[in-house]
Amino acid sequence: MGSTGVRIAIDAMGGDHAPREIVAGALRAREELGVEVLLVGNPQEIQCQLPPKTNLGQIEIVAAEEAITMEEEPLSAIRRKPKASINVAMDLVKQNKADAVVSAGHSGAAMAAALLRLGRLPGIDRPAIGAVFPTIVANKPVLILDVGANVDCRPKFLEQFAVMGSVYSQYVLGTPEPKVGLLNIGEEDSKGNDAAVRAHQMLRENSRISFIGNAEGRDVLSGRFDVIVCDGFVGNVLLKFAEAVGEVLLQIIREELPQGLHGQIGTAILKSNLKRIKQRVDHAEHGGALLLGVAGICIISHGSSQAPSIFNAIRMAKEAVDNQVLQQILYQYQSLQGETS
Amino acid sequence: MGSTGVRIAIDAMGGDHAPREIVAGALRAREELGVEVLLVGNPQEIQCQLPPKTNLGQIEIVAAEEAITMEEEPLSAIRRKPKASINVAMDLVKQNKADAVVSAGHSGAAMAAALLRLGRLPGIDRPAIGAVFPTIVANKPVLILDVGANVDCRPKFLEQFAVMGSVYSQYVLGTPEPKVGLLNIGEEDSKGNDAAVRAHQMLRENSRISFIGNAEGRDVLSGRFDVIVCDGFVGNVLLKFAEAVGEVLLQIIREELPQGLHGQIGTAILKSNLKRIKQRVDHAEHGGALLLGVAGICIISHGSSQAPSIFNAIRMAKEAVDNQVLQQILYQYQSLQGETS
Repeated sequence: MGSTGVRIAIDAMGGDHAPREIVAGALRAREELGVEVLLVGNPQEIQCQLPPKTNLGQIEIVAAEEAITMEEEPLSAIRRKPKASINVAMDLVKQNKADAVVSAGHSGAAMAAALLRLGRLPGIDRPAIGAVFPTIVANKPVLILDVGANVDCRPKFLEQFAVMGSVYSQYVLGTPEPKVGLLNIGEEDSKGNDAAVRAHQMLRENSRISFIGNAEGRDVLSGRFDVIVCDGFVGNVLLKFAEAVGEVLLQIIREELPQGLHGQIGTAILKSNLKRIKQRVDHAEHGGALLLGVAGICIISHGSSQAPSIFNAIRMAKEAVDNQVLQQILYQYQSLQGETS
Repeated sequence: MGSTGVRIAIDAMGGDHAPREIVAGALRAREELGVEVLLVGNPQEIQCQLPPKTNLGQIEIVAAEEAITMEEEPLSAIRRKPKASINVAMDLVKQNKADAVVSAGHSGAAMAAALLRLGRLPGIDRPAIGAVFPTIVANKPVLILDVGANVDCRPKFLEQFAVMGSVYSQYVLGTPEPKVGLLNIGEEDSKGNDAAVRAHQMLRENSRISFIGNAEGRDVLSGRFDVIVCDGFVGNVLLKFAEAVGEVLLQIIREELPQGLHGQIGTAILKSNLKRIKQRVDHAEHGGALLLGVAGICIISHGSSQAPSIFNAIRMAKEAVDNQVLQQILYQYQSLQGETS
C-alpha cells in the first residue's frame, strides 16, 4: 500500500516482547495500512529485528538512549530519563514530526510522558484512558472510560469523559448519535455514591451528549450503550476482569470443543467460524486503549502485546488521526464551554 | 430426609416468580435437606402453590399482610410496612423461631429489614453482601464482598469484611487458611486511591487474616484468592458484569458457529460438546448472596430466582447455620478487637 502520509511514532522498547514484536507489528502496519513508522529506541536493537533486505521506505529509526521499565514509578522515571523512548516518541508528536504515539510499555509512564510533553487539551481537567469492548451486538462496540488514569473522579471529570468519548465513538467508531451511560449500581437516577448522583445530574443536563441513564455491570456488553463513563478505579477493575474472562472462555472452548472423535471432526469443519468467535471475544484483536484529553493521539497497548496487537494499535492510531479526533474534541468541548459559561 | 432441626424463614412474596417458584424451591429443600421451612406471606396465595395432598410436616405458613415491591425505596418501605413479609421473616429469627432468612425480594429492603430488626453484630460497623464466584480452578470458589451494601467504604469497613469473609470461607466453604486480597488497580502496595492504600496497610497488619496483597480484576477468577474485599460500588458492578458475560459468550457462539453450510454440519456434530461448554459458562446458580455482619443468617437471592436458585439459597443458609458462622464471626471479631485495643 502506498503512503497515506500518516506518521506513527512507536515506542520500540516498551512491552514484554519489545523490541521484536513491536517492530514486527510496525512493519506489518507499514505494509497494510500505508503509514510511516518511526521506531523509537536503541537503534542497534531495532536494526536486529528488521529482516534482511527490508525495504527501508517509510521506516525511520529514532534513537532513544534509555527506556522505562515496568517496575519504575512512572512520574519520577519520566522526569529522570528525558531521553527514554516514550519521552522521545511524545516529543516527535510535539514537534509535529509524528501524528500519534503507540506504546506497549508502562501505561502510567506513557500517561505521565503525554501529560508532561504534550499537555492537556484546553478545557480538559483530566485525561482518561478509554478502552473499546466488544458487545453482544456484532460490530457495535462500547467505549469505556476511564479505565485507569484517575482513581478518584469528580463529577466534572466524568462529564468531560462523556464528551470526549462521544466524539471518539462518533468520528472513529462511526456511531451516528452515541448513547452515553454512567456506570452505576442501579438504573434509578438516585443510585450510587454522591459522585455518581451528581455526575448523573450533570450528564442529564448536558445537551451535547445523548445521555440515556445509568449503566449497570450487566449493561456493559448489552450493546445498549456506545459510551460508558466511570472512574478509573472501577473501570480498571472491569477492564482487567473482562480481559481475563475472555481468555477463560476461549480456554473452555479449546478444552471442550475438540473432545472425542466427533469433536475433532466438528472442530476442523468449524475452523473459520471459530476464528470469528475468537476475534469477537479476544482483547488482542482490539489493539489498545486510547489516552483522551492530551494534546496528541496516544494509543496504549497491553504490556503483553505481540505483533497483531501492535498492528491493531497502529490502526487505531491511524483512524484517530484520519478522523481528526483531537480537533473534534477541541471543537465540541469549546462549544460546550461556550454554552455553559 | 428426616429433620435436621434447622428452621429457615422464607420470604414467599419476594421475587419476580413469587410465590410459585419460592414455594417450589422451599418444598424441595424440605425434602432433600431436611430443613423446616417457614413460608412467610399471604397464606391463601401460598396455599395455592402447595400441590394437593402435600404432607404438611416441617412446613409452617406464617401470615404476613404486606409485601415490598421492587420499586419502593427500601428503608422507608421497611418502616412503613412493619407487617411486610421480609420484616416478619426477620422477626422470626429475632424471636428465635427461625435460624435464617432467605429472600429473593428487593435486596435493599432485605438489608434494611435485617439492620432494623436484627441489628449489627457487636464490633461490626457495616454489614456487607458477599457473593461466591466460581474460579478457573475447579471447586475453588472465591468470596467477593461487598457486592452492593455500601457504596462508600472506609478502610476499617474493608478490614471487617476481610475478617467476616475469612470466617465464611473457612467454616462454610472449607478453606483451611483463606487467602485474602484487596481489589485494586495494581499489585504494588502503593496502588489505588487513598482508601485502598490505607486499607492495604490495615489488612497487612491484621494478624487474624492471611492477607496476600492486592487483587487486580484479572486475578478475581484466577483461584489465587479465597476472599477479595472491595467497596460495594465496584463489587456490584463486577458481580453484575460477571453474571452477564457468560450469556454474552453463549450468544456469540450461537450466532457465529452455525454460519454457512460447514457451520451447520459442524455445529450438529458438536452438539454434546457445545452443551458441556454451556454448562461450564452459564452463570452457575449459586443460590444467593449472603448478608454478613447482621445478627442473623440472611441469604439474598436474585430477583429472577426460580425454584433451583431458591433451593440453593436455602442450602447456603443451612450450611451457614450448621457451621455457626455468626458465632465464629463474633468470636474472631471480638478477639481481634481485644488484640488491637
